[in-house]
Amino acid sequence: MAAGVATSAGPKAYLSRRYRLSASHRLHTEAYSADENRAVYGKCNNPHGHGHNYAVEVTLGGPVDAGTGMVCDLGELDAFARRNLLERFDGMNLNTLEAFSEQVSTTENFTAEVYRIFQGFTGAKVVRVRIEETGNNSFEYAE
Amino acid sequence: MAAGVATSAGPKAYLSRRYRLSASHRLHTEAYSADENRAVYGKCNNPHGHGHNYAVEVTLGGPVDAGTGMVCDLGELDAFARRNLLERFDGMNLNTLEAFSEQVSTTENFTAEVYRIFQGFTGAKVVRVRIEETGNNSFEYAE
Amino acid sequence: MAAGVATSAGPKAYLSRRYRLSASHRLHTEAYSADENRAVYGKCNNPHGHGHNYAVEVTLGGPVDAGTGMVCDLGELDAFARRNLLERFDGMNLNTLEAFSEQVSTTENFTAEVYRIFQGFTGAKVVRVRIEETGNNSFEYAE
Amino acid sequence: MAAGVATSAGPKAYLSRRYRLSASHRLHTEAYSADENRAVYGKCNNPHGHGHNYAVEVTLGGPVDAGTGMVCDLGELDAFARRNLLERFDGMNLNTLEAFSEQVSTTENFTAEVYRIFQGFTGAKVVRVRIEETGNNSFEYAE
Amino acid sequence: MAAGVATSAGPKAYLSRRYRLSASHRLHTEAYSADENRAVYGKCNNPHGHGHNYAVEVTLGGPVDAGTGMVCDLGELDAFARRNLLERFDGMNLNTLEAFSEQVSTTENFTAEVYRIFQGFTGAKVVRVRIEETGNNSFEYAE
Amino acid sequence: MAAGVATSAGPKAYLSRRYRLSASHRLHTEAYSADENRAVYGKCNNPHGHGHNYAVEVTLGGPVDAGTGMVCDLGELDAFARRNLLERFDGMNLNTLEAFSEQVSTTENFTAEVYRIFQGFTGAKVVRVRIEETGNNSFEYAE
Repeated sequence: MAAGVATSAGPKAYLSRRYRLSASHRLHTEAYSADENRAVYGKCNNPHGHGHNYAVEVTLGGPVDAGTGMVCDLGELDAFARRNLLERFDGMNLNTLEAFSEQVSTTENFTAEVYRIFQGFTGAKVVRVRIEETGNNSFEYAE
Repeated sequence: MAAGVATSAGPKAYLSRRYRLSASHRLHTEAYSADENRAVYGKCNNPHGHGHNYAVEVTLGGPVDAGTGMVCDLGELDAFARRNLLERFDGMNLNTLEAFSEQVSTTENFTAEVYRIFQGFTGAKVVRVRIEETGNNSFEYAE
Repeated sequence: MAAGVATSAGPKAYLSRRYRLSASHRLHTEAYSADENRAVYGKCNNPHGHGHNYAVEVTLGGPVDAGTGMVCDLGELDAFARRNLLERFDGMNLNTLEAFSEQVSTTENFTAEVYRIFQGFTGAKVVRVRIEETGNNSFEYAE
Repeated sequence: MAAGVATSAGPKAYLSRRYRLSASHRLHTEAYSADENRAVYGKCNNPHGHGHNYAVEVTLGGPVDAGTGMVCDLGELDAFARRNLLERFDGMNLNTLEAFSEQVSTTENFTAEVYRIFQGFTGAKVVRVRIEETGNNSFEYAE
Repeated sequence: MAAGVATSAGPKAYLSRRYRLSASHRLHTEAYSADENRAVYGKCNNPHGHGHNYAVEVTLGGPVDAGTGMVCDLGELDAFARRNLLERFDGMNLNTLEAFSEQVSTTENFTAEVYRIFQGFTGAKVVRVRIEETGNNSFEYAE
Repeated sequence: MAAGVATSAGPKAYLSRRYRLSASHRLHTEAYSADENRAVYGKCNNPHGHGHNYAVEVTLGGPVDAGTGMVCDLGELDAFARRNLLERFDGMNLNTLEAFSEQVSTTENFTAEVYRIFQGFTGAKVVRVRIEETGNNSFEYAE
């Protein structure tokens, strides 16, 4: 939400781009007993898992290039997202992926994971990642 | 889409109500080899499954009651949907349910299944069921 | 939904235009006792009323004019809607209007009323009126 | 809207898939004088054109395949749409295309054009094409 | 919008949850004459009131619990919202409620009121409340 | 995004209002060769241009007036937007306008331009302008 350090003078420019993927997950932690898992996660603890259409919005901040009039090259951003987001998570069961081998596959943790991944994008600074899990629930991880 | 017999005189009234649920599924049929399954279903054949937020829209047709001004009692419809739709499918892995023990858990088949279920609602005639699987894909089963 | 008699040869063209208005209403009928009213309408029977943003979608069917490439003149349609829909219902308490002096202000009855009103539009035939009362409830009145 | 002949017994299955494209157009016909063009099309007659994000929804009807549980192969449909819809119209000025060399580039005519194009799809029968031009205007061409 | 003090090191996590309610209101203040009320509030001053579907989005900020992977327990949040938001405002005429006995029932004031109410939630810190009054108007009250 | 200096005590109130317009543009800069333009802008460099429905959301921050209960007079804001935004950009080809005679008509530059324009609004402080170019791309210019 609060996107940045708010110290520089003048307004800032941001570009947000949305990627969509479908995945399944099961909320469950080995640290708890079966009863505790059911108490904390309710029906999201169902052993067969359930799923969502996740909308992942990545926000980049930075100066608008005076030549191109753009914050970053969208082609580069899309190529990065295809390789690092869509190919790794779309159509998957999150619980079977390495990213969730040591943490619960809540959308909070998924959002933080995507934020960390996009810190590797060099075209512009990713200042926020927002994931809409359903029309009523969304999660943000931001500077 | 074409909702009904179109034989009676005069316009018709319809009420549509939307229920939302999240579930996972894997597209896979025992009738095919592993290679054929991958060819037909692509990454939706991934053995760990993936998931969706499904929006299920149920459309009822019938006369507007002159007394109440309503096509049917929404409380009755919601109670029916809770018992027969949400409690059976929300938060579930469709492939583990009896409804998909003998048919693939495609959204086409899921839509037809929900249509059959709502034929048991006695408050008004269900003439169409539409399921939005994602913002780009939807399925209808209609008179 | 079923928009028309489906007897003519060849596909048909339809234009849909959406108007938005906010109004309040109270579901209540003099034909019932206070208890019956509460049983049928639940909290929508609250004496102070409540309200909605209604999205009214009007669908017109007819040939595409070979000269203009249009089903009807949108300027004429908007002028008709402003005069007969928005000026009469937007910002109003439906229960205080003549249209609902003898029928309950359910959205079923509101939809039928708007359908009747648009039969007076002469630019093209109105074949369907759909009102979305909330993101989950919608009503149609159609040929 | 009315999708089909409504003569067969039993409910019907439909699959709808949405494609998105951006294009510009100018509403103008050589058959009219400059004044008539302005009168009919208003500011859409502006010589430099304007543009829209068009959402094109294609609806296919037909039996659900008992083996695959699908109305048609989405991969085939997407390949057809890419070749015949997106590559031809996305990012374009409609007025410069052959399809609109002899008819005005209204969305009515665009919808009918897309409907004709998809009659060439052999995977299942296209019974309806709907184009949303804005959140308030949509057009359909249907059996 | 600016959600928080932005002094701590590292990115922050936020969870947003949306509740929907329908209510009516009339914009009117005893401090003004009838003419002044009409001048300031236009048709929203209509004595019978009008209404809206309000979407109330509550944003909570805080650390992701290392055990549960969650910012707060959604069950607790929903219970709080049911008791303090939905039961008090859904289906109501805002002007008849105590919260608006001494202030106009504008959505600005409604948003601030909901923000104050959610400061009583102890599961995590509510840093922002946003109310969408219509698809075109929204209001925020934020740290 | 970060709306303001976050130095004052207490929460802040914001009002956001959305205006919609349709326009066309062509991404192209005289500073580059034809090949460079194609490399940077891809099919958005197509000489005939393409177009979008732009949703322009203007966010104003400031105290809620104790008398009116409002952040600013919406009638004044709408009049300002009609004169300075809609009449200048709706239905236009951005490239033919003075605002884009010396800068590329990217949505980044368009957003900054609208932000500068709304700094002339005296009813309350405009702290953010956001333009949605498509359902997947949006741009912000904010304090």
